[in-house]
Amino acid sequence: MTLRIGIIGCGGIGQEHARRLHVQLPGARVVALQDLRRDTALAFNEQAGLRARVHERMEDLIASPEVDAVLVASWGPAHEAQVLACIDAGKPVFCEKPLATTADGARRIVEAEVAAGRRLVQVGFMRRFDAGYRLLKQTVTSGAIGAPLLAHCAHRNPAVPDSYVGDMGITDTFIHEIDTLRWLLDDDYANVQVREGRKTRHAHAGLHDPLMVTLQTRGGVLIDTEIFVACRFGYDIQCQIVGETGAASLPEPMSVTLREGGRQGGAILMDWKRRFIEAYDVELAAWLADTAAGQVSGPTAWDGYLASATAEACIRARRSGAIEPLETMARPALYDPR
Amino acid sequence: MTLRIGIIGCGGIGQEHARRLHVQLPGARVVALQDLRRDTALAFNEQAGLRARVHERMEDLIASPEVDAVLVASWGPAHEAQVLACIDAGKPVFCEKPLATTADGARRIVEAEVAAGRRLVQVGFMRRFDAGYRLLKQTVTSGAIGAPLLAHCAHRNPAVPDSYVGDMGITDTFIHEIDTLRWLLDDDYANVQVREGRKTRHAHAGLHDPLMVTLQTRGGVLIDTEIFVACRFGYDIQCQIVGETGAASLPEPMSVTLREGGRQGGAILMDWKRRFIEAYDVELAAWLADTAAGQVSGPTAWDGYLASATAEACIRARRSGAIEPLETMARPALYDPR
Amino acid sequence: MTLRIGIIGCGGIGQEHARRLHVQLPGARVVALQDLRRDTALAFNEQAGLRARVHERMEDLIASPEVDAVLVASWGPAHEAQVLACIDAGKPVFCEKPLATTADGARRIVEAEVAAGRRLVQVGFMRRFDAGYRLLKQTVTSGAIGAPLLAHCAHRNPAVPDSYVGDMGITDTFIHEIDTLRWLLDDDYANVQVREGRKTRHAHAGLHDPLMVTLQTRGGVLIDTEIFVACRFGYDIQCQIVGETGAASLPEPMSVTLREGGRQGGAILMDWKRRFIEAYDVELAAWLADTAAGQVSGPTAWDGYLASATAEACIRARRSGAIEPLETMARPALYDPR
Amino acid sequence: MTLRIGIIGCGGIGQEHARRLHVQLPGARVVALQDLRRDTALAFNEQAGLRARVHERMEDLIASPEVDAVLVASWGPAHEAQVLACIDAGKPVFCEKPLATTADGARRIVEAEVAAGRRLVQVGFMRRFDAGYRLLKQTVTSGAIGAPLLAHCAHRNPAVPDSYVGDMGITDTFIHEIDTLRWLLDDDYANVQVREGRKTRHAHAGLHDPLMVTLQTRGGVLIDTEIFVACRFGYDIQCQIVGETGAASLPEPMSVTLREGGRQGGAILMDWKRRFIEAYDVELAAWLADTAAGQVSGPTAWDGYLASATAEACIRARRSGAIEPLETMARPALYDPR
Repeated sequence: MTLRIGIIGCGGIGQEHARRLHVQLPGARVVALQDLRRDTALAFNEQAGLRARVHERMEDLIASPEVDAVLVASWGPAHEAQVLACIDAGKPVFCEKPLATTADGARRIVEAEVAAGRRLVQVGFMRRFDAGYRLLKQTVTSGAIGAPLLAHCAHRNPAVPDSYVGDMGITDTFIHEIDTLRWLLDDDYANVQVREGRKTRHAHAGLHDPLMVTLQTRGGVLIDTEIFVACRFGYDIQCQIVGETGAASLPEPMSVTLREGGRQGGAILMDWKRRFIEAYDVELAAWLADTAAGQVSGPTAWDGYLASATAEACIRARRSGAIEPLETMARPALYDPR
Repeated sequence: MTLRIGIIGCGGIGQEHARRLHVQLPGARVVALQDLRRDTALAFNEQAGLRARVHERMEDLIASPEVDAVLVASWGPAHEAQVLACIDAGKPVFCEKPLATTADGARRIVEAEVAAGRRLVQVGFMRRFDAGYRLLKQTVTSGAIGAPLLAHCAHRNPAVPDSYVGDMGITDTFIHEIDTLRWLLDDDYANVQVREGRKTRHAHAGLHDPLMVTLQTRGGVLIDTEIFVACRFGYDIQCQIVGETGAASLPEPMSVTLREGGRQGGAILMDWKRRFIEAYDVELAAWLADTAAGQVSGPTAWDGYLASATAEACIRARRSGAIEPLETMARPALYDPR
Repeated sequence: MTLRIGIIGCGGIGQEHARRLHVQLPGARVVALQDLRRDTALAFNEQAGLRARVHERMEDLIASPEVDAVLVASWGPAHEAQVLACIDAGKPVFCEKPLATTADGARRIVEAEVAAGRRLVQVGFMRRFDAGYRLLKQTVTSGAIGAPLLAHCAHRNPAVPDSYVGDMGITDTFIHEIDTLRWLLDDDYANVQVREGRKTRHAHAGLHDPLMVTLQTRGGVLIDTEIFVACRFGYDIQCQIVGETGAASLPEPMSVTLREGGRQGGAILMDWKRRFIEAYDVELAAWLADTAAGQVSGPTAWDGYLASATAEACIRARRSGAIEPLETMARPALYDPR
Repeated sequence: MTLRIGIIGCGGIGQEHARRLHVQLPGARVVALQDLRRDTALAFNEQAGLRARVHERMEDLIASPEVDAVLVASWGPAHEAQVLACIDAGKPVFCEKPLATTADGARRIVEAEVAAGRRLVQVGFMRRFDAGYRLLKQTVTSGAIGAPLLAHCAHRNPAVPDSYVGDMGITDTFIHEIDTLRWLLDDDYANVQVREGRKTRHAHAGLHDPLMVTLQTRGGVLIDTEIFVACRFGYDIQCQIVGETGAASLPEPMSVTLREGGRQGGAILMDWKRRFIEAYDVELAAWLADTAAGQVSGPTAWDGYLASATAEACIRARRSGAIEPLETMARPALYDPR
């Protein structure tokens, strides 16, 4: 059986996902495209040789009987309405981050899904599909380090564009740690705190960089994370979980050890796109398999909602300078662990 | 376009490749099977849900108009005749190691291919498709270590079955380094030497283990390799290239760094099957793409012949205790680098 | 010239220092001992073959014309009076941690030294003499990572005795990071915060373990430190300084890399005494050289005062749960950097 | 008790050892100097403030009743006569490498010592006193890797002067591995082989670099060593021992791990003098203690003889291209292990 996919949003990430689904992975075809800028959709359709139908409106794509499932890769503010329309149509939907630009928006999606009575939404938190994070989770789950007590993380980027400002360190960058650590530790957050380190001279005027964010889980685990997006030296993702009897660290990406010019060591990736490129493949393959089986086992709308709510609490905490409690709606039974 | 593949040999590796081609990779279907033990082929066809035609004789599978290309995964002594039949039929063929059990047999395949006037054969040297070796080759080719002068390798297995005896350390184990180092260094071998180290008590009676093999290329590069197949501690593949200005080492497989019980470090794989499992995927995907394009860019029959000839020289050298020259036929123009 | 040393306090650390001074290092002789338990002093004198004079009272040892300089290794509460007596006598004194058990006590020592008009006191912060920390400081000072912005530290012990309770994680353990980071960053502290992680089941009833402490310097640098004294897996000291263009980590202690049983890696020390054993040698050699030259270039009474004041602020912060400012007396000119 | 030392040879290494003995280590004083160039000895005596007696002739220094023990740091060709004179005078002598410039010369020293009936000579193989090599030997001896079967070594120098030619790769560089591996493995050599790798363009005309040397012990252990003295990238000493159940590697020298400019890793020393500087200290301290106790437990004249004999066999093997047996005199009982 081949899943017929409609893609909403034909920018960079939409194009990459389209190629993954259409060319690289078995079991899917991209049959429909939609983009606010119709020309973009038409040009991509032509250039990629998809022979997909290009719709004027996202509603038509979602409603089309030719489309079995939808992938949302439009810009963030459009996600909520598009995902709600998919739920309304009873169609499985893969939605890139963020699920919605506000926790309230994400809550509306959760409520719609609960009303629909089944999980239809997967959110694009690809780190859960990364081989390194999976090894780390296996190690933690195996009991090799005992019960987790602390986690130390870093999310470093060599540089960000001038359009990256304000709280984007939280909403665009730290959002990944928010979801990944919940999943790694199998625990929810109780409170959050944000502190500003000494600002690097390499951050532009509108950006305070680096930040230190501390999350505490309901179980008491403290998670500190360095967010440093103008670090210059590489795209460098670190995560160490400290447990009662040991500590386990996220594997470094594979690299050649070079001995040269009085130094020995390996490369740090400079380009974030390469860091999780294989995780995207695994993520979409898993989504295809789940969708074919009529289920969602990846990150759900509930995960998307909690990520948004946590990010909003972090922004509040940044303003207040205090440890802010995280208050969220009660988890609907639809999202009980299976 | 979907390539229709016939598989000869339905044992372990044949079944794995069949699943890769049929399920995992886009662009291919397994339409025909053949095995000396017909029941094996029938049972696998059923169990894997392939709906392939099961042929009595390999000749019929090869001749079948339903079959676009052939994958040979039978036992070694059968390879030569099967590959020659594919060449005769003008069909692209992927042949697992060894291409033939003797250098003479491999030479006959080379000559048949030369007579046919085009490359049809790819040999299953999967390391050329391993991400780590590819990074290492990139590093060497980039000039980061200057011209290569030496290489130090190790090929370690935790244990081997009692059926692994005599010169299998050369023919079944070292054969991988023989091909990989030629490719890494882009150089041919001039001579070989084999020395026996102190025998481990963990090797059974019919096996001298470990061995140290030294290859020297025509360009003068010395390559020493430890072959240690009852090393107990892991499946451990090492390769360091030393050049005029630096040294580069094969990346270790990704692993979680664990701090526990007074020790810190990572895992060494114990199971060789997991070490190159992704390389097999890349290898077959590349073969499919090449076959669809009517070309062979992976390891050729010529590479298979040189590997066999080198292994035979190593066996001679082991008997003589001396440095043995490697004498091979001249390279036909068909195999000139492209 | 040979310095004649009097030692106050003949317990474990006093005995070790006595052997260092008398046997291992050139330039010193231990000529006088004093201990609250006179028998201890007598027995040690005998057993170590020192032929030192054993004094009843610390005042007599300090006043003795045979004693050029004093080493204080008694229990903490006695330090203040003993160091003040040395200053009063105009004798150079090396005082083990803590300089005094309160910031007020340490301040009185500072004031006495200022009144005396010259530096006489060195405090036993031995990490400043550790080869690894010195390499790290060199790296930071060299500009290799740009201006420091953040630091991440861990101070882990496999286990602590039942007598280790309450705030000793701050006063006995974290006190080292307090001094070392000021020295590494060449900056003073502005505020402190303490958070309690999820408590390990391996900590006894009277101890909350682990803690996360955050110091912020006046320059804005945030320093987070994990204090985990029942971590089970080793005596593990970590320190990474993150700067505007790079990050530098404290070297791991030297260890053999072992490949064995499916794992590769090195040892983590289990015994804290071995971690800085060479630093103690360097520390006392430097103190002897300085004392012979009539100067103090190691950690001063001022450093001891700031460490105590910072530790007290940490204890306040632990109680309040808030970020507490660090308020200290103004630095007397005597302690201006030279 | 203070040992009164006479030093023969006041060049670089003689001066360094003089400072070690006189200033840095307790228990010794340098009371006599001699150098072929008397001015050198006089100037050093003055500049270092030794107040030693400067002798015209080495015989007078050795005979002087003021001298308890002798350190020979003259040029190699002079060693044999000087050491023989010390034995003749019944004085303990520390002799820098080489013990003699020929195996025959070293044999004459062995025979003189045997005739004298006691060990008087220690040879300056400092690696036995290096903390890293000692950890490695402990690991091997502990049984952690089972019985040793193979060893892989590298001895790399960034560059050598134009005066470094011909077989100096063996006699001046590899000589260290010759002694160290015998000691590490507690085994003697049976045969040797030397092969020339592809020559680096960075070696000058009179030098073939790199070399690969293989030693085989009587127990069958094969030891391969890369000797690469114009490697450009660092002074890099590697040693891995492979045993029946594991492999153990010499620790890397301590270094800060730096993350910077897309790379992570540590420094490789460029200057060989710093690599073993602490080993020299330990070596001389041990020699002083042994000498005070009337014994030699470090490398003996017998070790010096075997090193010379092995080096000569290597030079023969290099000429012949064959595996050359090592034939040596029988070990006198004086050198039986204690």
